[in-house]
Amino acid sequence: MPRRDTYTTESLLSVAVEVFNVRGYDGTSMEDLAKAAGISKSSIYHHVAGKEELLRLAVTRALDGLFAVLDEPALADAGAAQQLAYVLDRTCQELVRNLPYVTLLLRVRGNSAAERAALDRRREFDHRVAGLVSAAIEEGDLRSDLDPRLTSRLIFGLVNSVSEWYRPAGEAAAASESNRAGADGGQDIAKALTTLVFEGLRRRD
Amino acid sequence: MPRRDTYTTESLLSVAVEVFNVRGYDGTSMEDLAKAAGISKSSIYHHVAGKEELLRLAVTRALDGLFAVLDEPALADAGAAQQLAYVLDRTCQELVRNLPYVTLLLRVRGNSAAERAALDRRREFDHRVAGLVSAAIEEGDLRSDLDPRLTSRLIFGLVNSVSEWYRPAGEAAAASESNRAGADGGQDIAKALTTLVFEGLRRRD
Repeated sequence: MPRRDTYTTESLLSVAVEVFNVRGYDGTSMEDLAKAAGISKSSIYHHVAGKEELLRLAVTRALDGLFAVLDEPALADAGAAQQLAYVLDRTCQELVRNLPYVTLLLRVRGNSAAERAALDRRREFDHRVAGLVSAAIEEGDLRSDLDPRLTSRLIFGLVNSVSEWYRPAGEAAAASESNRAGADGGQDIAKALTTLVFEGLRRRD
Repeated sequence: MPRRDTYTTESLLSVAVEVFNVRGYDGTSMEDLAKAAGISKSSIYHHVAGKEELLRLAVTRALDGLFAVLDEPALADAGAAQQLAYVLDRTCQELVRNLPYVTLLLRVRGNSAAERAALDRRREFDHRVAGLVSAAIEEGDLRSDLDPRLTSRLIFGLVNSVSEWYRPAGEAAAASESNRAGADGGQDIAKALTTLVFEGLRRRD
């Protein structure tokens, strides 16, 4: 029997994002959401217009977090390479901090208006970061023998792939040594990733 | 109306993998497969025992290709760092060559025996490559300030992420500059990726 609706839109959103990530957004019905939340469908409609609004709220949160990184004051006077390192590091931390929301964003496929709007903003973000890569090459701080677009794709693939294996400390089923590395909110994952991208693995003495 | 079954198990498999990648393996019914192939369900059962056998055939192909890389003669007398570079480069090319099969493998979630067997072999592959990372650090060729397990996760995340954006030349809808980079069978993607991982982006004069 449905329980009394004690949800806020915020706490309902958190349940919905979890269901979307397990079943896929397309594969999730309002019925599934009601069941997972333990309330009736009409209680959900009291909070939002439907599942597309839940998706929109969720991916907007993820995107706002990512775009905020690009506008942080730390970046104002830095060269492009330093800005890029900062954005990589902070994006990685954002991914860990907002994991379910960013994971959902990364799986968006574009079958609805809300999804297409999210893909447009993702592309804009990627475009701005690709601009940093090009600028850093022009400023002479990054190697010039790699294609800037291909390089941007690779480093974003790398950042995004963290969502495939990272699980917050405490989610015991997936716990392992390299997950403990994320116990500090992703700072050491971010540091390892940024070191890998800028310095590479080869030892230099 | 279903057309006459002119499929081999091979060509049927290729249709099935495409459907699995679009709808998800769990979301695909025998009905969906029959519809996509344009033949009856009983014609499909003439080739295979069911959709789980199609999954097993598909992921086995992907895994056999990846494991073959580890046993190539080029690796026999090389140091661990050189072996790792070779494995990264060749794995990346395998991913591009076998894209739909590897993509399916990377999405396997473990809800059936065939999926769990595939996950076990994937883990074994990751484990062997993580061993190369550790050995290369011990041999003094790779920097020792990064955790080997975390490093392995990051570089495999990077390789696997190529499946998220790479589309073979000719699939026009997704065509773009950085896709053209894969027109040679992934060799330049593999080279850029291996350079990034070993040398990093920072320019050194």
